[in-house]
Amino acid sequence: MAENEPIPIIGGTGALGAGLARRWAAAGRAVVLGSRSAERAEEAAGKVGETVPGAEVEGLLNEDAARGAEIVFLTVPFRAQSENLNNLREALQPGQILVDCTVPLAAAVSGKATRSLGVWQGSAAQQAQEMVPEGVTVVAALHTVGAPTLADPEAELDEDVLVCGDRKADKARVAELIELIPGLRAVNAGPLEIARIVEQLTPLLISINVRYKAHAGIKLTGLPDGDHWA
Amino acid sequence: MAENEPIPIIGGTGALGAGLARRWAAAGRAVVLGSRSAERAEEAAGKVGETVPGAEVEGLLNEDAARGAEIVFLTVPFRAQSENLNNLREALQPGQILVDCTVPLAAAVSGKATRSLGVWQGSAAQQAQEMVPEGVTVVAALHTVGAPTLADPEAELDEDVLVCGDRKADKARVAELIELIPGLRAVNAGPLEIARIVEQLTPLLISINVRYKAHAGIKLTGLPDGDHWA
Repeated sequence: MAENEPIPIIGGTGALGAGLARRWAAAGRAVVLGSRSAERAEEAAGKVGETVPGAEVEGLLNEDAARGAEIVFLTVPFRAQSENLNNLREALQPGQILVDCTVPLAAAVSGKATRSLGVWQGSAAQQAQEMVPEGVTVVAALHTVGAPTLADPEAELDEDVLVCGDRKADKARVAELIELIPGLRAVNAGPLEIARIVEQLTPLLISINVRYKAHAGIKLTGLPDGDHWA
Repeated sequence: MAENEPIPIIGGTGALGAGLARRWAAAGRAVVLGSRSAERAEEAAGKVGETVPGAEVEGLLNEDAARGAEIVFLTVPFRAQSENLNNLREALQPGQILVDCTVPLAAAVSGKATRSLGVWQGSAAQQAQEMVPEGVTVVAALHTVGAPTLADPEAELDEDVLVCGDRKADKARVAELIELIPGLRAVNAGPLEIARIVEQLTPLLISINVRYKAHAGIKLTGLPDGDHWA
């Protein structure tokens, strides 16, 4: 994605979206936070601006944030994923990449956050792929990066982000944005269907975090050094 | 488990079982390899003995290997899990812990090793818990430790083992054995039902290994230092 193009985050008023916005802003990238309400979007953008000196952050309606961007991040809770994708149908155009960060936690239906719901299509990301307009490609990523860690400017990240998608070139473009955030390494986890495993890492980490009162992340050992996307 | 008690591995002639046997033998622990054939068990034990100087390794029929041990490791492929548990019904006694390492890879029915089968009970480990005699407790562990890495005496391990089970005390006893192997850290991943997530890490790692021509392991970042089982 061109360096002067802002990174759009749909659901940018939520904890994950706002956390990503801070980190990208701190890395010198412009960000657009999307929300269903332009007012709430502007408010959230203002908060990021306050905490990151010199941040270029704007708040827009979701559709306006997504329109025309090469890569769009979707960071809404599972409960709101379908509604958001419906609302984006007119805004999204062939050639765009939608990065789905949704995790089908049972919390969406008042269940436990250490359990997940079965999604008919196999995963939230595959549901997203079914719902986006033809020609829009879904990549799944960022399920395991904790919002509290992203939001804490003192917290140093040191973890991997597993990226799923059916085309390596698309994943590599998303990986580039992920790796703008210091301490995150993007790893090619395979085709989009592997999202049904990767999405489960969130309830697993929640289970571990409860036990250790921690904010755990995932890291893979034994991978070769160097550029994983060359 | 008492230090002079050998560690029994059911399915010890397979790659994971033999790999664990080598590592425990190298750490100075006696091991019993179980097989459906006493001859094959002895043969496998002989091989471990050849590669690990001074190894105390014996080969026995599965039932004889399991009988009376505090903790029994089950390292058979998913295809053979039910049959093995049926055969162990008379040998296992209340108070024993069965460590299930089974992963329901779709490879069991000629499918891909990057896909898994749905198990009615939720996971292979929960299926095992249903099948063992009353009073035997199942703990799930060691799904993500690669057999080729274990088997290679030059390979240094550096990864976590996610341990699932309903009682922390049981998991702690299993963790102690796991951590006899240098480079492995046992992490409390939650109740046995979380095995339905942890078992999925194997097809995930296989997908990543294919892409990176690697033997990847899992590690958690952000956990507190010190004894995780105190």
